[in-house]
Amino acid sequence: MKAEIIGVGTELLLGQIANTNAQYISRCLAAIGVDVHLHVVVGDNHGRITDAVGGALQRSGAVIVTGGLGPTPDDITREAVAAVTGRLLRREETLVEVIEGIFERLNRDMPTENLRQADLPEGATVIDPEGTAPGFWLEHQNTLLFALPGVPWEMKAMMRKAVVPILVARAGSAVIVSKEVMVVGLGESRTHEIIGDLVDAQTNPTIAYRAGAGVVRVRITAKAADEATAIGLIRPLEEDIRQRLAPHALPGDAGSPGEALGHLLRGRGATVAAAESLTGGALGAELTCTSGSGDYFLGSLVCYSDAAKRDVAGVSDAVLAGPGAVSEEAAAALAEGAAQRLRADLGLATTGVAGPAEQEGKPVGTIFVAATFGGRTEVRRVQGYGDRDHIRALAVTGALDLGRRLLEES
Amino acid sequence: MKAEIIGVGTELLLGQIANTNAQYISRCLAAIGVDVHLHVVVGDNHGRITDAVGGALQRSGAVIVTGGLGPTPDDITREAVAAVTGRLLRREETLVEVIEGIFERLNRDMPTENLRQADLPEGATVIDPEGTAPGFWLEHQNTLLFALPGVPWEMKAMMRKAVVPILVARAGSAVIVSKEVMVVGLGESRTHEIIGDLVDAQTNPTIAYRAGAGVVRVRITAKAADEATAIGLIRPLEEDIRQRLAPHALPGDAGSPGEALGHLLRGRGATVAAAESLTGGALGAELTCTSGSGDYFLGSLVCYSDAAKRDVAGVSDAVLAGPGAVSEEAAAALAEGAAQRLRADLGLATTGVAGPAEQEGKPVGTIFVAATFGGRTEVRRVQGYGDRDHIRALAVTGALDLGRRLLEES
Repeated sequence: MKAEIIGVGTELLLGQIANTNAQYISRCLAAIGVDVHLHVVVGDNHGRITDAVGGALQRSGAVIVTGGLGPTPDDITREAVAAVTGRLLRREETLVEVIEGIFERLNRDMPTENLRQADLPEGATVIDPEGTAPGFWLEHQNTLLFALPGVPWEMKAMMRKAVVPILVARAGSAVIVSKEVMVVGLGESRTHEIIGDLVDAQTNPTIAYRAGAGVVRVRITAKAADEATAIGLIRPLEEDIRQRLAPHALPGDAGSPGEALGHLLRGRGATVAAAESLTGGALGAELTCTSGSGDYFLGSLVCYSDAAKRDVAGVSDAVLAGPGAVSEEAAAALAEGAAQRLRADLGLATTGVAGPAEQEGKPVGTIFVAATFGGRTEVRRVQGYGDRDHIRALAVTGALDLGRRLLEES
Repeated sequence: MKAEIIGVGTELLLGQIANTNAQYISRCLAAIGVDVHLHVVVGDNHGRITDAVGGALQRSGAVIVTGGLGPTPDDITREAVAAVTGRLLRREETLVEVIEGIFERLNRDMPTENLRQADLPEGATVIDPEGTAPGFWLEHQNTLLFALPGVPWEMKAMMRKAVVPILVARAGSAVIVSKEVMVVGLGESRTHEIIGDLVDAQTNPTIAYRAGAGVVRVRITAKAADEATAIGLIRPLEEDIRQRLAPHALPGDAGSPGEALGHLLRGRGATVAAAESLTGGALGAELTCTSGSGDYFLGSLVCYSDAAKRDVAGVSDAVLAGPGAVSEEAAAALAEGAAQRLRADLGLATTGVAGPAEQEGKPVGTIFVAATFGGRTEVRRVQGYGDRDHIRALAVTGALDLGRRLLEES
């Protein structure tokens, strides 16, 4: 079954918000084997909504519309869907009571325009409101059309409770299962040189890349009658890819280099600490964005000034005055200072030039990351590029990966 | 002039990423008075891309396509645009050199596939690569078509350097100017109670809210013949709103609480340091995400373990054993420890429970932020909600705002 997702709302076209609803719905549909082939966003405009919905009804077996179900005059999804499916709007008395009940429970007077939310295209089935906006669904020439509120939490609840179960009952023959192999330290095109023959040969599972911030995600996606079969299709391919890309492939199901390092540390009962210049705390933030990180992460010494590098992390004046704060020597000293002062098994560090201007005569994009474990200290120079945020992200990824490699080799 | 934005990438249709590129581009176009009337997302599929681009070329004066310009076989935007505009692909020898130069600077071998990125539809003009992917633009039957990489930072740079200037030169009759007033410490509905009458009364400028992570952004948008006129429409309204919302409105043009505090510190020639538990480095990362932050930010002591709080930030055993690491007392001690050990004028701190489980009997969402300046220490309790990331973001916003308020009052 093919599906289209239509977002309604001028705030999306003005860029005031991103269309995260389409992302959530796409994930839900992929998980039940419904193939999304188009996202569309239109404003609160009757003609544009009817064009988009009309086209979608022609092309797809399932159409999911979000937004335009509120009480205010600019909320016209109900009218547009009625028009394009050749139906009249009928006021659902049961919904009138439900909506009045919601306002009673909130101890708020109900503005009369809220009753517009009880108007549905004839023959449509109500999807009970989570907030104050009801959703609805109907079948038009063998296509299922779902209309959901644009408020994310209301939309998500209706996807879980109504849309997914209905689609599974109708379409849920096949499932789509995806597995990601994360690759660090190889570019997208270099990765393709190593596994491109597999990518080109595969139809099911399919293989796709997504690159960003020093990580290439190799996604293996299988379509099958059930999850076990899909996983059976994925596993041998995944093993082949991991072998070819080792040691650049992150082990296990880690969703990020930080998670991969975390798994490794937990498995060894080891702890980690960091000292950060360039990244200003982003390395610590990445290490702690997964819950339970308190089991292995002790802390990070964010030393932005030279004085802080000396006093807090113990970088020697000789290093700061000689090779300087942006140097192999400083990176090593920061990693060792972090491990020592926070009494951690593994010490990580970042230093470099995020820009906009060069520093100590070193160009923007200069990055040194370091890791120390069991008396052995490794420094890696990473060539940064892009904007300030991207350079910092490359440094975080580089430090986490160097730490993982050092731990794996020890 | 009307515009459409087409996102190319199966990862968007699978919900692996949200289409934030369309949001950024929409904001850029709104700012120069170009009216975006459609967003479309299609997969890496020749037929779908040509359908989308072909339709857009019929409907719109400007079409911006993002994605599908990489070096791998699934990157086929070049081919699709050539097909739909009836052109051949021609290899740009100047681009070959540029691409080879990029790999030389990165000290990496260039995979031969990357030369596909030098192939452009005949008559297209190159948009110089920011990373390794060049963009291009062409005119087809009075419609401007821009093809940009999907990598956000590359796309953003090309929007600023190429797309916006070209469109301004072509279209820029009316301009849309927006000004944002950032409000911290008031919810969206409380904000609406205070300025709702203005919102309801206004047609030009219009006023809209956007809430997130403890900040409500009040966006004032004026449409006028030129920028000066638009700003003239905005200013009196902005002043009224700032007066009504003071002291919750961030001063000046700060785009974030971190920037607002940074301006204030630079103006005073003062320095700041932090000690973080809950936020794991995110507070330091936020303070350093603006360039030039080295002028006032000295460092941050990320103390995740109790031992680190004691050894690195000097929190007393009495506090850790008594009220505990998640307490007013601990927050105050962390702020004072940071200011003292990093010799900063302003000390900031965060502690709390990000979840998933409670800690020291304190429920998930408990947040204490602290600031110390000139011998005066203030602690604020912030009620966190939502997921782990959101709770951490609320803590960062709270600490930065408390520091700003303390500085303003001193």
